[in-house]
Amino acid sequence: MMAPGFGFEVTHTDGGARRGAMSTPHGDVATPAFMPVGTQGAVKAVTHRDLADLGTGILLANTYHLYLRPGDDLIARAGGLHRFIGWPRPILTDSGGYQVFSLAERRTITEEGVSFRSHLDGSSHLLTPEKAADVQAQLGSDLAMVLDECAAFPIEPAPARLSMARTARWARRARDRFETLRTSPPAGVMPTNPGQAQFGIVQGGVYPDLREESAAATVAIGFEGYAIGGLSVGEPIDLMLETVAMTTRHLPPDVPRYLMGAGTPEDLVESVARGVDLFDCVLPTRNARNGQLFTSRGRINIRNLRYREDQAPPDADCGCYTCRHFSRAYLRHLFMAGEMVAATLNTVHNLRFYLDTLERIREAIAFGWFERFRTEFHQRLSRRP
Amino acid sequence: MMAPGFGFEVTHTDGGARRGAMSTPHGDVATPAFMPVGTQGAVKAVTHRDLADLGTGILLANTYHLYLRPGDDLIARAGGLHRFIGWPRPILTDSGGYQVFSLAERRTITEEGVSFRSHLDGSSHLLTPEKAADVQAQLGSDLAMVLDECAAFPIEPAPARLSMARTARWARRARDRFETLRTSPPAGVMPTNPGQAQFGIVQGGVYPDLREESAAATVAIGFEGYAIGGLSVGEPIDLMLETVAMTTRHLPPDVPRYLMGAGTPEDLVESVARGVDLFDCVLPTRNARNGQLFTSRGRINIRNLRYREDQAPPDADCGCYTCRHFSRAYLRHLFMAGEMVAATLNTVHNLRFYLDTLERIREAIAFGWFERFRTEFHQRLSRRP
Repeated sequence: MMAPGFGFEVTHTDGGARRGAMSTPHGDVATPAFMPVGTQGAVKAVTHRDLADLGTGILLANTYHLYLRPGDDLIARAGGLHRFIGWPRPILTDSGGYQVFSLAERRTITEEGVSFRSHLDGSSHLLTPEKAADVQAQLGSDLAMVLDECAAFPIEPAPARLSMARTARWARRARDRFETLRTSPPAGVMPTNPGQAQFGIVQGGVYPDLREESAAATVAIGFEGYAIGGLSVGEPIDLMLETVAMTTRHLPPDVPRYLMGAGTPEDLVESVARGVDLFDCVLPTRNARNGQLFTSRGRINIRNLRYREDQAPPDADCGCYTCRHFSRAYLRHLFMAGEMVAATLNTVHNLRFYLDTLERIREAIAFGWFERFRTEFHQRLSRRP
Repeated sequence: MMAPGFGFEVTHTDGGARRGAMSTPHGDVATPAFMPVGTQGAVKAVTHRDLADLGTGILLANTYHLYLRPGDDLIARAGGLHRFIGWPRPILTDSGGYQVFSLAERRTITEEGVSFRSHLDGSSHLLTPEKAADVQAQLGSDLAMVLDECAAFPIEPAPARLSMARTARWARRARDRFETLRTSPPAGVMPTNPGQAQFGIVQGGVYPDLREESAAATVAIGFEGYAIGGLSVGEPIDLMLETVAMTTRHLPPDVPRYLMGAGTPEDLVESVARGVDLFDCVLPTRNARNGQLFTSRGRINIRNLRYREDQAPPDADCGCYTCRHFSRAYLRHLFMAGEMVAATLNTVHNLRFYLDTLERIREAIAFGWFERFRTEFHQRLSRRP
């Protein structure tokens, strides 16, 4: 049974690229879409108002962080994540798995799940496919993710197969729990979004046969959407894009496809060309806090001495608040002086660049000129600012 | 000769309180007014857009910080401080003296001025009354301050008299330089605001006779406005307010009076009752970053465990962005999780509380009910939130 509050329709295709409309209990999302990362229920350095002004259609929040602090019980009592953080639009939560594999301490994986210690206070926790579903039900995100095993890169075919198979078994358990939560939630779990949807995750490293098997097993269970996991973890870009292409080929055409954790603006354009609909990445926000700005002519680092008296905006082609009002010289001054608002202004610009790129992608697909857009996008980026 | 771009008119009086209209080259300011502190050309943790939304009429910037980094020469080449920072409304700059006395290292005061070493890189500098005027001319603020000697509290009458007398001699030199800058600026100094005005500063500790002498000497020189310096430096509140009252008594009625560096919301209301027109203070912004919120029922610290699940806004009577959208529980979470936006949201609220208090003061004076406002304001604050 599919989630009642969820829908997806591909409205245009252009080569491998798709434009679509996704509906969720908290509103519609035009795809391909980029989700800013709001780890702890806030996108670092900007307000929700900034995000809305930038045209953010959907936010990502991290289950691991929110489970540990302030806790999903507390958030459920506040009426769910949307109400707790005051964000009325769609939210996707990850399963917490990726953070357990990258942040937590003393991690042990068994068939049951992953036991770990919190990076905050050392407390012990067990994350199972069921627990990940429970926590996300309490958070009440619109799109929940199954718990998957995040294999490292590089990984040999044999362990990659074992890991992929376990992810498939966990996916079955996650879906069973998801359906139980919808019909008769167990005592102590308070789902806050009856229209929540659940996405499966395809793993299998960079091995075509494993990706195909993983896709088949996950699709057989039946989810509202499918994510491509285990990429953007250090593999070469070409291999990532090849793996994306070989994976989307095995996914049904009428459901959304989400490439987790990628990537640069160029990666996004290339992944759209291979049939991806959803993205999230910390690059625009994290790099902003380090002074790196994405522009239509490539990246610049605002700390550079050459910008000391540069009265031009970061990106002359950008219409964001930062570019409309401030010079590189002022942004450099704020950064060098350690002013917090430097992070805010840089983040506003970088998110706008990402969101605007996706908007232009959607337009190009609708008008059937995606290939031309793609070529020009790459040509422009290669001209240094 | 008075500055051409400057004007001030008292439009209403109510007891000792005055409502006025101040005009500057970058627009008008309704008084009594509070100036948010934008030390390095930015108010910490908020954007100019936030400030404008909050109704900020005039900003304060710190000469000491901007002189050291990025430098007033660089700012002058960019067209002055307004253009460099992208703030088109009025700006007041202090003289840099207070920061030299509180931040700089190896400070030596002579009749010529203050020599010191930068707290940033240890470089040697000499700040004289002339230099302070030059730097502010290059910054191009609308209101410039003379260099004064900031005496410590407590201070004995004899050294307080010496310090006050030196401040008066420096004021004479500062005004002479200010007039030279207007008519024939020396080589190497590029004034960027032909309509800049200059305020004198009354010193004299908490001694009525010294305050009277200082006021007389400063008024005799003739400035566009007068500041009350040397208060809010650790003296008891009653003594501060007494000193304010005894100082404003000796100032001409038709020019603005600026109480430097004060204070709490209660201090502002009480100082307005004693004839003050302008204020600046780091309390609302600094305390915001430490989690302390000013509300109509007194202060609260958002870190407190009691707010963990408090779904109420910080101040139910406040219409700021933060109070309209977020709960104490969410703000506490953001603060405890170390999210930068906690500082932003707290600062937005605190500044709104200050600016709104001043707006209500202006309204009360215009309608002739300032005494009633004052009584109710204090009664309300004493009810704990």
